[in-house]
Amino acid sequence: MAQLRLALAQVNATVGDLGGNAEVVRLWAAKAAEAGAHLVAFPEMVLTGYPVEDLALRTSFVDASREALEGLARDLQTDGVGELPVVVGYLDRAPAGSRDADPTRELPQNCAAVLHRGVVVARYAKHHLPTYGVFDEARVFTPGHDLAVVRVRGVDVALAICEDIWQEGGPVAMAREAGAELLLVLNGSPYERDKDDTRLALAARRAGQAQCALAYLNLVGGQDELVFDGDSIVVDADGSVLARGPQFAEDLLVVDLDLAESTFDPADVTEGVVFTAVTEEPAPSYAARAAPEAPRLDPVGEVYQAVVLGLRDYVRKNGMSSVVLGLSGGIDSALVAALACDAVGASNVVGVSMPSEYSSEHSKDDAADLAKRTGLDYRVQPIKPMVEAFLTHLGLTGVAEENLQARCRGVILMGLSNQEGHLTLATGNKSELATGYSTIYGDSVGGYAPLKDVPKTLVWELATWRNAEAERAGETPPIPPSSITKPPSAELRPGQVDQDSLPPYDVLDAILELYVSGAQGRAQLVAAGFEEAVVDKVVSLVDRAEWKRRQFAPGPKISALAFGRDRRLPITSRWREQDS
Amino acid sequence: MAQLRLALAQVNATVGDLGGNAEVVRLWAAKAAEAGAHLVAFPEMVLTGYPVEDLALRTSFVDASREALEGLARDLQTDGVGELPVVVGYLDRAPAGSRDADPTRELPQNCAAVLHRGVVVARYAKHHLPTYGVFDEARVFTPGHDLAVVRVRGVDVALAICEDIWQEGGPVAMAREAGAELLLVLNGSPYERDKDDTRLALAARRAGQAQCALAYLNLVGGQDELVFDGDSIVVDADGSVLARGPQFAEDLLVVDLDLAESTFDPADVTEGVVFTAVTEEPAPSYAARAAPEAPRLDPVGEVYQAVVLGLRDYVRKNGMSSVVLGLSGGIDSALVAALACDAVGASNVVGVSMPSEYSSEHSKDDAADLAKRTGLDYRVQPIKPMVEAFLTHLGLTGVAEENLQARCRGVILMGLSNQEGHLTLATGNKSELATGYSTIYGDSVGGYAPLKDVPKTLVWELATWRNAEAERAGETPPIPPSSITKPPSAELRPGQVDQDSLPPYDVLDAILELYVSGAQGRAQLVAAGFEEAVVDKVVSLVDRAEWKRRQFAPGPKISALAFGRDRRLPITSRWREQDS
Repeated sequence: MAQLRLALAQVNATVGDLGGNAEVVRLWAAKAAEAGAHLVAFPEMVLTGYPVEDLALRTSFVDASREALEGLARDLQTDGVGELPVVVGYLDRAPAGSRDADPTRELPQNCAAVLHRGVVVARYAKHHLPTYGVFDEARVFTPGHDLAVVRVRGVDVALAICEDIWQEGGPVAMAREAGAELLLVLNGSPYERDKDDTRLALAARRAGQAQCALAYLNLVGGQDELVFDGDSIVVDADGSVLARGPQFAEDLLVVDLDLAESTFDPADVTEGVVFTAVTEEPAPSYAARAAPEAPRLDPVGEVYQAVVLGLRDYVRKNGMSSVVLGLSGGIDSALVAALACDAVGASNVVGVSMPSEYSSEHSKDDAADLAKRTGLDYRVQPIKPMVEAFLTHLGLTGVAEENLQARCRGVILMGLSNQEGHLTLATGNKSELATGYSTIYGDSVGGYAPLKDVPKTLVWELATWRNAEAERAGETPPIPPSSITKPPSAELRPGQVDQDSLPPYDVLDAILELYVSGAQGRAQLVAAGFEEAVVDKVVSLVDRAEWKRRQFAPGPKISALAFGRDRRLPITSRWREQDS
Repeated sequence: MAQLRLALAQVNATVGDLGGNAEVVRLWAAKAAEAGAHLVAFPEMVLTGYPVEDLALRTSFVDASREALEGLARDLQTDGVGELPVVVGYLDRAPAGSRDADPTRELPQNCAAVLHRGVVVARYAKHHLPTYGVFDEARVFTPGHDLAVVRVRGVDVALAICEDIWQEGGPVAMAREAGAELLLVLNGSPYERDKDDTRLALAARRAGQAQCALAYLNLVGGQDELVFDGDSIVVDADGSVLARGPQFAEDLLVVDLDLAESTFDPADVTEGVVFTAVTEEPAPSYAARAAPEAPRLDPVGEVYQAVVLGLRDYVRKNGMSSVVLGLSGGIDSALVAALACDAVGASNVVGVSMPSEYSSEHSKDDAADLAKRTGLDYRVQPIKPMVEAFLTHLGLTGVAEENLQARCRGVILMGLSNQEGHLTLATGNKSELATGYSTIYGDSVGGYAPLKDVPKTLVWELATWRNAEAERAGETPPIPPSSITKPPSAELRPGQVDQDSLPPYDVLDAILELYVSGAQGRAQLVAAGFEEAVVDKVVSLVDRAEWKRRQFAPGPKISALAFGRDRRLPITSRWREQDS
């Protein structure tokens, strides 16, 4: 048997920040060396950040990534950790002579490299390029075809990248044939509600197929609409969990593996396998340490942390530090305020109450109560003078007048954003967004929408969860209880409540889940037991709102199919699900 | 030799409107029958409209397309044109047992079918799925592998769909091996400046490779950000043009072909070729008619017509009939007003002059002059009372105050839009959009931005072209000459002109062309002779504006790489081209 101390650096990279990401690798590689690791790995495309989208098609960016990789190898040597093999994801291009469907482009590849003693000693290009959901990889990358196997301390380690293990065949089968003892998989796998079990089940299954241990290393951090949740996993060949990293936090997961010493003869290389001996000599026998297994968050807490991390990183990675939002006294803005305080600190959150003549007393009280509970920077600006200036001259009525109120609020928030440098947060939730129950350029104004993928029923659950967490910690619950319990209303006309226009939220959200995430048709929804008239109403609202959604702020994705890049529908379309 | 009268129906389909599109096919098939055609063809996915994007992933939509196809075959028979073979593009699914990378989905395919005597007699699935620029086909479709050859009047016709002939090998090579006499290619190929010659050169080259005549049939009409330009082409085996359809207009292109009678023996079928004899008997000899070759528009007129068609169809296909826009007296809003009058008629265009205290007299005069010249519905609404209501309470200064003016105008336009039911048009051009020289939720407000892909220098050319066209026709030029000649200004502070903030537009647009469409890097731009400081300024503005662009209205694409779906960049990114 051979021992191997493997370190998985579950880190937070920033897209495009080659210099900063290289610093992250150096910092965590030094920690791994200090922990006595024999091999340290970093996530998919850690050097460029992930996903880079069409940046991959810029020659100057590919060149910069390649240069940064070589510079990083030299810097690691200078840092005194050159003896430690470091596996990093980066952007490269296919070797000269490779072919691509598009002859005009330069064959960028999603790659992993092994750095050792100041140089790049091995290279692997991802085979399977996901092109569904949020992934566009067939658009920007050229697939690789070879398997890289590196021998470290006498143990043969095969490399793979993310989608490579979600598809049958490919690197998994090749790793088995090559007799690898460890399959090391670098991932940029975004968070999705209830996805954890899928990943673990997959890792266990692929370990069985490859007949070796499998290390699943994932990125952590928010990047535009995606939130990478870490949660790295190491399993044995029989699928049992050896170690697991935390969710939504950076970490160095160190695990001592007891593996078979390699019997593979490099002279007898399998077709398509590129073998590199990094260090032949097995490590001297040592006492293994117990590997950590981080506790799991509960299902609601998991979503809360995903949204906080997505928001924090969106603010930070855009070079900002503070946010501004409208406080209506309702549950959505109260939850966004609480999330924002957790993400960037209450002193960096400006909350503006903007009452109109239709705002109830309890709304104003609840907004003030929220401010007091959280300690955010609270302001009050009634909108009557602005609304009247428009009404006097334009004579707007009905929905146009309702929208005018929301738009005056949008102008106020954007004015404060421009004047003081805050990122404006839109407070709308997924149920509103899906059904178009919001005002374009009004309450939808903002650079980021934390609840964009959070249905209303989950909004209540998150608020309740957050308050309960505070109670547990002996702190003041941030959200006024009456914001949670009162019936939701846009308060744009007297006595208005959401259920004047929408089905009850539990019914609405259940239909949205099936229609949006499940891509089910009208007939299936009716067969599932929903009232025909309600199904038609919801389906019709969702189809019509597609146009509006295109002009909304990005927000963190938490479900299988959110609105945004992973749901690409024509804006102009006469297709009506109810006709089918 | 065998004669064949081929009709190419270059029609305008609407995405999702299965019933309406089937009506279009019936109408034009009847015209083809009346013209004595032996075969009539319709464009790529004419039955569903194109592109359908993620609608392809809805089972209910695939089912509806399949049913619509069968219904159409029956209806054509009922219409009395059942004897005429009709080739139509539609959405189908791969036969049971096919495999796909994503096992959870139902293998939708981009298909063509031949309808004859009330039934579907042949079927072809597109082989090559473009996944670059505006195309996402690898995301939604499963590729086909067989070639369909149909014998019509003794002539063997091979089918292909769009990208199939842009790639080497595949259907073109198979058509040659199968001995086809005509390669019929259904397209959904969007307009792009100066692309015509590329298409003709390609058609000629592929005809040579297939050793047979080639008919290139293209869709016409606007669909979201795409404008399909028609311009169908028929070439002989030696590449000479036999017929050509008009640009940007529906048409039935009828051409009499003189082809070799088929010598292919169906019993001796090549691997992968599916042969269907529709009508074996050659047509009795007849006197061929001269085929039309529609005149080409000049390069500027071509763009003008593309933008008019894109705008008209966006309004119409979204079920609207009128538009509203702000008239500043400047060139951008003047051109958009002229385009809108051409697209939907002056009586359906509301133009609102919204002067501020910084608006010059000439601006107000030019706006009024434009209204008089075009006859649009003109209104004047000074913004001072609204701006003051905000300023009094918020104390905004500098850029925040400038943006406030633009946002008050946005609120007025959206108020009129909501009250009266017009689509709001954003008047910004590509140079502004690229550099972020506009106010989010201000002048960028609108459901559609006709100049989204038109650089400022081309704005002037289009305005000049339109006025000259009017002169030629003895009509009043729609655009006030002083709007064309005066220096551009946003008029948001005293004495402001665009060149305070931006390089001269000829330099700016030249850099944008290389940096955006050419994906060239900083070093290449400097090597091309641009001043280093100017390059850095432009590149920095473009990179920073990416975030804003995500929240803008769609607009028609006229260049190789516009902003929108064909330019996917991370919103949050630290990559700065100037560092490379």
